[in-house]
Amino acid sequence: MTTPRPDPTAPSADPAAAPSAMASAKADLARALFAPRAVALVGASADPAKNTGRPQRFLRHHGFRGRVLPVNPGRAEVQGAPAYKDLAAAAAASETPIDHALVMVPAAAVPDVVAQCGAARVPVATVYSDGFAEAGADGRARQQALLEVARAAGVRLIGPNSMGLVNVHAAMPLSVNAALEAPALVPGGLSLITQSGTVLGTLLSRGQARGMGFAKLVSVGNEADLAVGEVLDLLVDDPETAAVLLFMETVRDAPRLAAAARRAFAAGKPVIAYKLGRSAAGSALAVSHSGAIVGADAAASAFFRRHAIIRVEMLETLLEMPPLVIGRKPAPKAAPPLQATPPSKGRVAVVTTTGGGAAMVVDRLGTLGMEPVPPPARLVERLAELGVRIGHGPLIDLTMAGTRPGVYGAALDELLAAPDCDAIVCVVGSSGQFHPELAVEPILKAPKTDKPLAVFIAPQADRSLALLAEAGIAAFRTPESCADAVRAALAWAPPAEVPDRPRCDLSAVEAALAAAPGPVLDAERAAAVFAALGVPCAASRVVSGPDDDLSGIAYPVAVKILSPEVAHRTETGGVVLNIPDEAALRDACRAILARVAEKAPSAPVSGIQVQAMERGLAEVLVGFRRDPGVGPVVVLGAGGILAEIHRDVNICTCPISAADAREMIAAVAGLAPLRGYRGLPVGDLEALAAALVAVSDLAFVDGPAVREAEVNPLLVRAAGAGVVAVDGLVVRDE
Amino acid sequence: MTTPRPDPTAPSADPAAAPSAMASAKADLARALFAPRAVALVGASADPAKNTGRPQRFLRHHGFRGRVLPVNPGRAEVQGAPAYKDLAAAAAASETPIDHALVMVPAAAVPDVVAQCGAARVPVATVYSDGFAEAGADGRARQQALLEVARAAGVRLIGPNSMGLVNVHAAMPLSVNAALEAPALVPGGLSLITQSGTVLGTLLSRGQARGMGFAKLVSVGNEADLAVGEVLDLLVDDPETAAVLLFMETVRDAPRLAAAARRAFAAGKPVIAYKLGRSAAGSALAVSHSGAIVGADAAASAFFRRHAIIRVEMLETLLEMPPLVIGRKPAPKAAPPLQATPPSKGRVAVVTTTGGGAAMVVDRLGTLGMEPVPPPARLVERLAELGVRIGHGPLIDLTMAGTRPGVYGAALDELLAAPDCDAIVCVVGSSGQFHPELAVEPILKAPKTDKPLAVFIAPQADRSLALLAEAGIAAFRTPESCADAVRAALAWAPPAEVPDRPRCDLSAVEAALAAAPGPVLDAERAAAVFAALGVPCAASRVVSGPDDDLSGIAYPVAVKILSPEVAHRTETGGVVLNIPDEAALRDACRAILARVAEKAPSAPVSGIQVQAMERGLAEVLVGFRRDPGVGPVVVLGAGGILAEIHRDVNICTCPISAADAREMIAAVAGLAPLRGYRGLPVGDLEALAAALVAVSDLAFVDGPAVREAEVNPLLVRAAGAGVVAVDGLVVRDE
Repeated sequence: MTTPRPDPTAPSADPAAAPSAMASAKADLARALFAPRAVALVGASADPAKNTGRPQRFLRHHGFRGRVLPVNPGRAEVQGAPAYKDLAAAAAASETPIDHALVMVPAAAVPDVVAQCGAARVPVATVYSDGFAEAGADGRARQQALLEVARAAGVRLIGPNSMGLVNVHAAMPLSVNAALEAPALVPGGLSLITQSGTVLGTLLSRGQARGMGFAKLVSVGNEADLAVGEVLDLLVDDPETAAVLLFMETVRDAPRLAAAARRAFAAGKPVIAYKLGRSAAGSALAVSHSGAIVGADAAASAFFRRHAIIRVEMLETLLEMPPLVIGRKPAPKAAPPLQATPPSKGRVAVVTTTGGGAAMVVDRLGTLGMEPVPPPARLVERLAELGVRIGHGPLIDLTMAGTRPGVYGAALDELLAAPDCDAIVCVVGSSGQFHPELAVEPILKAPKTDKPLAVFIAPQADRSLALLAEAGIAAFRTPESCADAVRAALAWAPPAEVPDRPRCDLSAVEAALAAAPGPVLDAERAAAVFAALGVPCAASRVVSGPDDDLSGIAYPVAVKILSPEVAHRTETGGVVLNIPDEAALRDACRAILARVAEKAPSAPVSGIQVQAMERGLAEVLVGFRRDPGVGPVVVLGAGGILAEIHRDVNICTCPISAADAREMIAAVAGLAPLRGYRGLPVGDLEALAAALVAVSDLAFVDGPAVREAEVNPLLVRAAGAGVVAVDGLVVRDE
Repeated sequence: MTTPRPDPTAPSADPAAAPSAMASAKADLARALFAPRAVALVGASADPAKNTGRPQRFLRHHGFRGRVLPVNPGRAEVQGAPAYKDLAAAAAASETPIDHALVMVPAAAVPDVVAQCGAARVPVATVYSDGFAEAGADGRARQQALLEVARAAGVRLIGPNSMGLVNVHAAMPLSVNAALEAPALVPGGLSLITQSGTVLGTLLSRGQARGMGFAKLVSVGNEADLAVGEVLDLLVDDPETAAVLLFMETVRDAPRLAAAARRAFAAGKPVIAYKLGRSAAGSALAVSHSGAIVGADAAASAFFRRHAIIRVEMLETLLEMPPLVIGRKPAPKAAPPLQATPPSKGRVAVVTTTGGGAAMVVDRLGTLGMEPVPPPARLVERLAELGVRIGHGPLIDLTMAGTRPGVYGAALDELLAAPDCDAIVCVVGSSGQFHPELAVEPILKAPKTDKPLAVFIAPQADRSLALLAEAGIAAFRTPESCADAVRAALAWAPPAEVPDRPRCDLSAVEAALAAAPGPVLDAERAAAVFAALGVPCAASRVVSGPDDDLSGIAYPVAVKILSPEVAHRTETGGVVLNIPDEAALRDACRAILARVAEKAPSAPVSGIQVQAMERGLAEVLVGFRRDPGVGPVVVLGAGGILAEIHRDVNICTCPISAADAREMIAAVAGLAPLRGYRGLPVGDLEALAAALVAVSDLAFVDGPAVREAEVNPLLVRAAGAGVVAVDGLVVRDE
């Protein structure tokens, strides 16, 4: 793959940062990480086959031009180079400053080595040693202590539990990974940041076999100090990096990662992520596997989307996709129409001379929500002029005529220009195997436009794949990764605009939160919080029991027990609905007090909520919670048990705009009835959007933060008639 | 891959067929198809690069030992061989009988060539020519005419629109497919039947590149005569075939395919299918692409499952999976428990020395509903004896200790023997790339058991993949195809027992159907059909209007208009519920007659149905329809609009047993409440199962067949209290 270098004369994304001290510190850090003048290998083994003996061998094998200083207190020489008893000795002996130390000693000895780095003015240590946060509570404590030593010593850390890093262009493989046994490393524009160490080798070996070249590869390990976000930020400024691949287990530094991803977008460097944790099994694994606290995977997806990080579903897509997005920038998406059935995820033209191979791509695109476009009228005409007649099906099958000079090229020209086609997939048949140059020639000659163009080669055809890779054209080995990449490219949107202030003054919200006697608010206090946010709540008042003065109540009403310890009030018998008059109200109060006293005798009862009965077209759930990975999120779901069974919710990171809220409403399948499915009356979706924005504003609350909040149900009335919350809960910090 | 040959001394699956005339006719057909003594190439081109010139070149290139007779009226010689003006001349000149003709002439000339085949006693013609059923109405007529000529001439056809067929073991490549340009063909145990011609080359080239050998490859084209089922039946008896891959666009010969698949299962030859049409886009394509009438894809899936055809989701799985199932036969599945949440789809042990690569497989297995098993206690103990301590997470990570002698082998031994583990996945890390023999050695040495064992190799490691393929061990290039294959292997079950007679005497059903004045039955007549099948229906009687004698009615009741032309009675205002007394009933009759007269003035009204009001825990939908591909199917869905939005239904081909019905009930997510989700009262699932079986018995009806029937809703009451149909429709043939 060629390395499109960003234009150095282009204005910087952040002009204020240009010649500042911060920028210079970043440049120094990048230099020490990726282009050290001298590296110390602390704990280097004399056995070149051992893991700890490999880095020295790899540095020599790939021709590193800097100084390499093995540190090994037991030997004067390691693998033919003079060895030093400690870092101080190494630093003293080196005429060039040691910019980077690779630390490969047992966990207990690591803090001391890092302290030595500080003393010897080594600015960066990459810690291969394991036994830290990935190894239980003791390990976590050890990692914290290590971080403190590093901070005190002024040393930046990669790891611990890192496989190291590689700068391909500078022939600097500072890693134990066996993939570096490869005879040569192919330089190119792809950089990789991985939380899983061995994946560095997985992707390097697979990419190289396909002729894909790399710039930088970094295994961030446990991310005690430098995490994915900060490394990404450095790569945005790396002239060799054209796109960054992320292999993620969890999000540990959300704000930094968000900011770096936005800078990368502005700089025209796509960021593409594969993340573990789609399934519960995978999530559990990410926790045990590298000491991560896993945020919900859906929250991570929402976070990626918000900050223009492209998420792919398949391993090979990560490698095959970049040319589809490098050099392109998606236009802002128009607001999705709030229609009953979800809109198409993209109109894709599939051009081929081979029916079966192309049908696999079309089928998979369809499963992922995209629609194949029939040949545009202009294309049909132009081909007719060339004496070619094509069908009108979802596949643009040029048949054998596609091999005649000019036909394929004409088809591509028309499709690249066609306004009603968002992307193109060319499917190459058997010619790809035995006549690679011929097979891909019209594709190589196609003009570069902003429209994504992907190629799937049906037979085994390594040479065709390599030719396309060399030309910077996205070529796919399987129909599945091809469709995954096209989906991801079409879903890619510029970073969302994140509101920087709440929609309304939050002092009333903060007062309502502060007034609560404990962290769990009862439903009446929760309603006060939601009302202060601007969410309409059912009119209610609190009575203490059946003997209160009940005058002035408009019937029918509902009564609900009030207790911070009774969250599921219906199941405790704490709710009676549709009470027609005062006598029935007194009976109901008596009954629920008795039932709650029996079923939850220890729950403190703060009163009985008497609430106006409300009706709507449908019930929805609006939630707020703090994800340990990506921070506060707002959740929208259809109400009822079937929505729960189908996990039919949408999540967005907070705070959100009205446009975000509308996107959420469009994305929940079970809200189709409110969007007019089967001619049903449309709900007040503007009011629902406003309620979502209001709840997301909880992220701005000053003082004791809200941990969790939920309006459930929120009744949505017909268009123009608003929404009304009839129950909810709020939990704040102590 | 080695070719496990079936034991010729094993008893035949169908002993009656052994030395019969039928078996001998089948053997003759197979010989003519796959091992012809002489082949005629009708329409052979003298230009070896042209499609029609290729077969002759390929036959010579791969060393076909039979006679090859080009037929070309314009030349005395073609590609160095004597050419003949027609088949008669060729047959006269050939000392060996011509067993097979490949027909490559324009569509209009094909029937004549096939007639000549008959005259020259050529028993089989493979028709490459296109312009038949795939080319619109004219083409369909042409194909029908061709078929009639073939039948009259006693000639069996492959195609038209076929890419031909290949017998690798006999060096007989009778095909125009460019993949045959390959220097050599690798013989092995995989056979392929494909409805999409070019896919023959796609799979041949990809398989060969991975060291996978093939036996027979057949492109069946439009299947005018020989279709997938009959070819599969021949391959069951083929000693070279160990497993059969199907590439399907549609099911054209369901009964034959079902029977052949059952014979293949009995013979220990797994049948693995990849089918287009998962998405609406793909379905549309299958129609236009090769002239198929597409059955619903879900019906095809149900058909495959019923007859033990394994369905895979990804192209590469088709090639990579066979060793996972060759030589294994799944045990009958225990009845699924009717529990709220769906049971696990399998417990899979993932063993590795490389965390990240394995985590990708675990995550994907989880998304597909399988659960990773933690290391069994015996394994933990045994490894402890070897001085290895492993964690208890979902990944069995042997870490570097796994490379010590004996450790990996011990782990595999224990897992192969562990009763609470259904399958094993070994994930190989970087050693697979540079030390392939070492990396796969313990896996090659593992004992062969009935437990599926799959291997995913994380880095690029062609040699490791080939070593495993040679040893008949399933090796996967991507985590996604690995998980897809493990899912498919664990879902594989013996063919279902299909009831051969209805549960009850159907004469009352047939009488009720015959009594209807037209093909569309009104709701009262439909109820009579369902009642005769044994489905409890709400008590009802028919009145003509408000002035009828209404005595003897037990209230409350519902009234519903009766008209075969008003299918959606609620939307036409033709339904009133909860009528408390006779006065209200008379009003309701008047009202609905007026409304229907206004909204559907031309609909003939046969009366008003007065029906007892019924209640249940939930509503379900039970449907019956004839799928154009796989025949009659029964459908179960949760009731209500959300179930419709989530397409939450299960389909089974008819007729079904009570066990099938229970599996259907277990498989519908939205029925979780009836299965006790969140402590809700359990529904009468036995009664529901009985209703499903009853409706599926419509497949047995003699006389005018039922095209379509639906009970909607069927109310399901609490366990023991039964079910009751409150509305339904039946459409029969004229």
